[in-house]
Amino acid sequence: MRNELVGTVTTPALVVDVEVLERNIARMAETGRTAGFALRPHAKTHKCPQIARRQLAAGATGLTVATIGEAEVFAAAGADDLFIGYPLWADEGKARRLRALADRTALRLAADSAAGARRLGEAVRGADRPVQLLVEIDSGHHRTGVRPADAVEVARAAADAGLDVAGVFTFPGHGYGHDAQARERAARDEERALGEAAEALRSAGLDVRVVSGGSTPTAGRWRPDGPVDELRPGVYVFNDAAQLAMGSCAAADIALYALATVVSVPAPDRFVLDAGSKVIGADTTPWVSGHGHLPDFPGAAVTALSEHHATVTLPAGTAAPGLGSLVAVVPNHVCAAVNLVDELVVVDGTGVVDRWPVAARGANG
Amino acid sequence: MRNELVGTVTTPALVVDVEVLERNIARMAETGRTAGFALRPHAKTHKCPQIARRQLAAGATGLTVATIGEAEVFAAAGADDLFIGYPLWADEGKARRLRALADRTALRLAADSAAGARRLGEAVRGADRPVQLLVEIDSGHHRTGVRPADAVEVARAAADAGLDVAGVFTFPGHGYGHDAQARERAARDEERALGEAAEALRSAGLDVRVVSGGSTPTAGRWRPDGPVDELRPGVYVFNDAAQLAMGSCAAADIALYALATVVSVPAPDRFVLDAGSKVIGADTTPWVSGHGHLPDFPGAAVTALSEHHATVTLPAGTAAPGLGSLVAVVPNHVCAAVNLVDELVVVDGTGVVDRWPVAARGANG
Repeated sequence: MRNELVGTVTTPALVVDVEVLERNIARMAETGRTAGFALRPHAKTHKCPQIARRQLAAGATGLTVATIGEAEVFAAAGADDLFIGYPLWADEGKARRLRALADRTALRLAADSAAGARRLGEAVRGADRPVQLLVEIDSGHHRTGVRPADAVEVARAAADAGLDVAGVFTFPGHGYGHDAQARERAARDEERALGEAAEALRSAGLDVRVVSGGSTPTAGRWRPDGPVDELRPGVYVFNDAAQLAMGSCAAADIALYALATVVSVPAPDRFVLDAGSKVIGADTTPWVSGHGHLPDFPGAAVTALSEHHATVTLPAGTAAPGLGSLVAVVPNHVCAAVNLVDELVVVDGTGVVDRWPVAARGANG
Repeated sequence: MRNELVGTVTTPALVVDVEVLERNIARMAETGRTAGFALRPHAKTHKCPQIARRQLAAGATGLTVATIGEAEVFAAAGADDLFIGYPLWADEGKARRLRALADRTALRLAADSAAGARRLGEAVRGADRPVQLLVEIDSGHHRTGVRPADAVEVARAAADAGLDVAGVFTFPGHGYGHDAQARERAARDEERALGEAAEALRSAGLDVRVVSGGSTPTAGRWRPDGPVDELRPGVYVFNDAAQLAMGSCAAADIALYALATVVSVPAPDRFVLDAGSKVIGADTTPWVSGHGHLPDFPGAAVTALSEHHATVTLPAGTAAPGLGSLVAVVPNHVCAAVNLVDELVVVDGTGVVDRWPVAARGANG
């Protein structure tokens, strides 16, 4: 299985296959280039400057992050063009930090309310360079974001508060489904909602230079001559059990797994690993059976997960691995797993080649 | 609601009410004292030396931890009696660390296989003081642990490998249910399985000084004259939405919540908070509706959770809080939430009084 790593890696650990990672980065860069979309990958997935640098070297125009804390980490690591793709509410402390960021890097912010946009404008007033703002549009996921017709009010408030209104963005979370049709529908929803919002802004006399869509499942599914001109996928660098089950990646595209030790074999068809929810995450999705994917055990499933135990149930006729063996578990949701560890163990075909700190781990605020 | 903390706490944050915490610690200590059970609380819940010190000062005989990493953190903080309640597989690196721990503190280990026990014995051979071993018994949760009748084989292997076999323990995870009967049944299962295992060891001529049971739901439900003589609850220090729904605590016993800011109000009956799965955890349980408990909004539920968004749906007739308001969310599973942050913000009736590092955060191996 993974036993060439016995003695080198302390389990549980998250292991990154750097060759698969670099292939994934190159392929998404190519998708963007071919169709003419700017690529601004979401760094919340990896939280790791070593990976951000590879994305930027492959042609990404900047990074997307979810929090001010993540922006601070990547700015400190040298990133100079950051989009905080989240409708921040700038209280006093956050306003101060935004202002410091705006003095340091090209900064793009997000809002889905006029009040939120005004606060952002006040926060960065007087910064060394203009701060862009994108209005968040709800394209069908029904989380944050306004309806396309309501984008103008937010954009006007932002412009009045001194922000450089640059366009609109959306996150098509409803494209996370187990069939390709869900992804196609979500991609069409994105195009329609973003197109309507951009048109509304233009009709109101506002400039629209950025029309930004998600996401690993929908990335590149837009019409090249359609309204979308930027993509912000995150998970594609690693992929995970959910993407595999959705069909948005192949098994060979999975670049990260939890490496775990068999600590107990309580029955011939069952064994227990030392990787629990505190390293692979507790996320479940309706389209993955169990708590992760076991690449080396076809037909097996993680049928129970607690903080430090993954119970694997084997199909009939499969022999359990011995105590002390190493087993790989691909997390259901890789962004959650990466956020649980301090470092990623980097391997290639020869063994461990590096360890990368998850520099923005826990940077939630 | 929680708005007295605006300007003091950056959201999202995990906030601990120290008065409730100390009441919970005192009450469990009293439960143990009254019924004559030794109390060895599980520190994986809080991972925080400031809380461990309060537990020990209230009369705990030692701490339980889940990993070598946690043991190292608490030993460094001065704890001198530690039980790693997990069937570790001691590879070379872990063997070295166990030996170093055994030289430093009273150490108790766990095994559920003869091979595992032998490895532990080899790991700590020659340590300055004897290292205890408890055999893990499966009392019905069907995770790790052996059947009571199989305890003798593990115990003999441990004794032959030089460990001080001290008794048996179990974790009654099947006592986590939404009705009090499940807890009672699990407590009876614990007593029966531990009693049978202890009897089997004694019949084989082995000494049994420790018979150790779980857990916040079953703690103290054993017969004072029964076989169990030690309790290892963890969650009781904070409690959480799962314990509340199970009825194993009252609302007033909840000592920890995520403090979050309202960032979006997309509809009159819906608002979005900046606390997502990366701070409150993604754990769900069949007996909690949604992703956490909202103490200030009766009838409301967190109906969707993503990494940095909690979508709250309100019952008819309840007004949404304004943008920028602070709202408390009690996590479903507090052990998972605490492991996501670097520090706990400590409050009493007057405001923020301290910040405690989650010193063993991420110490999975």
